[in-house]
Amino acid sequence: MVTGLFITFEGGDGSGKSTQAELLSEWLAASGHVVVRSREPGGTDVGLELREIVLHSRGHISPRAEALIYASDRAQNIDTKVRPAVERGEIVVQDRYIDSSVAYQGAGRVLDAAEVRGISVWATEDFRPDLTILLDLDEAIGRERLDEVRTRFDRLESEKSDFHARVRAGYLALAGAEPERFLVLPATDSIESIAAAIRERVSALL
Amino acid sequence: MVTGLFITFEGGDGSGKSTQAELLSEWLAASGHVVVRSREPGGTDVGLELREIVLHSRGHISPRAEALIYASDRAQNIDTKVRPAVERGEIVVQDRYIDSSVAYQGAGRVLDAAEVRGISVWATEDFRPDLTILLDLDEAIGRERLDEVRTRFDRLESEKSDFHARVRAGYLALAGAEPERFLVLPATDSIESIAAAIRERVSALL
Repeated sequence: MVTGLFITFEGGDGSGKSTQAELLSEWLAASGHVVVRSREPGGTDVGLELREIVLHSRGHISPRAEALIYASDRAQNIDTKVRPAVERGEIVVQDRYIDSSVAYQGAGRVLDAAEVRGISVWATEDFRPDLTILLDLDEAIGRERLDEVRTRFDRLESEKSDFHARVRAGYLALAGAEPERFLVLPATDSIESIAAAIRERVSALL
Repeated sequence: MVTGLFITFEGGDGSGKSTQAELLSEWLAASGHVVVRSREPGGTDVGLELREIVLHSRGHISPRAEALIYASDRAQNIDTKVRPAVERGEIVVQDRYIDSSVAYQGAGRVLDAAEVRGISVWATEDFRPDLTILLDLDEAIGRERLDEVRTRFDRLESEKSDFHARVRAGYLALAGAEPERFLVLPATDSIESIAAAIRERVSALL
């Protein structure tokens, strides 16, 4: 049986996920592979409608309702787009997957991250990436630099920074638990050197 | 602590749920209670958007994605509307709740009904109705009558009838497992006699 690959990109906003996913996709396509790009949320038509609700709905959405909308988007994406493509032998390159939900929920501390993961495992029938590339951004570096200039953080900025530090710690814990699935690269490296490291790792899977 | 009531109506389409929910609500309001009407799906603003996706989205929605959209609607409904009202001492009268998901998924035989229930229990933090009124409609009666007139069912009609018979069996099994929560009434009784039986049972809870 022919089988393709499911490759996911993870990392904080601004870590360069989309850029690297695009570069990898172009390289794979140039090498003759059929590449399918996806993202969560919003990788499908139904997912785009769900994404619209989560990101632009007026009024408050409860944390559990929001987590379930993300899981629904994920179920639709895996069921109708990702799994069929991988079964056809194609390569799916996707921005964000279950690791995002776990890292962000763990950092937000409202819902139990293990429970949120359980919902996503059910949503996807435990469909796992062959490779997850984590673009690791050290929030502390940015914060230290800022601290040198200003003596005090305002509370909101400090909370935001704590939140991003917890997201990062969550991602690194996930990568540490599954070193064979994760490739962790410093997001501060040059675009080209990151792209080369990704190509090297993906080549080994082809 | 003051606590209100959460009363749900269950049964197949056309069993008279909305009519009876309305009559009960009017009676409770006339007795001086604050009554909140709700329904699933679509009891909240976010829920209406989710309902729109499930009922009118073009294209196929995967079974798990659909189940998670219903669960999301349910989380939002309980979190932002039902639980706050009950905690204020009000009476929530609602068309359909978790029992619907379990009975219909069990009948559809695509997803595991116990897993679907588990998702809803997580969605609502196991928020349970004080009373569930099941309007029980004997599909077999309707079918027998039809069988007398025509000698053969066409396949689709027969499948539909089988499906409704399984939904009914699922509901009756739920009611049998929790007799203290359920009031089961024959949907073929007169509107007024059903309403009177409901009022009698609700009176005992007030």
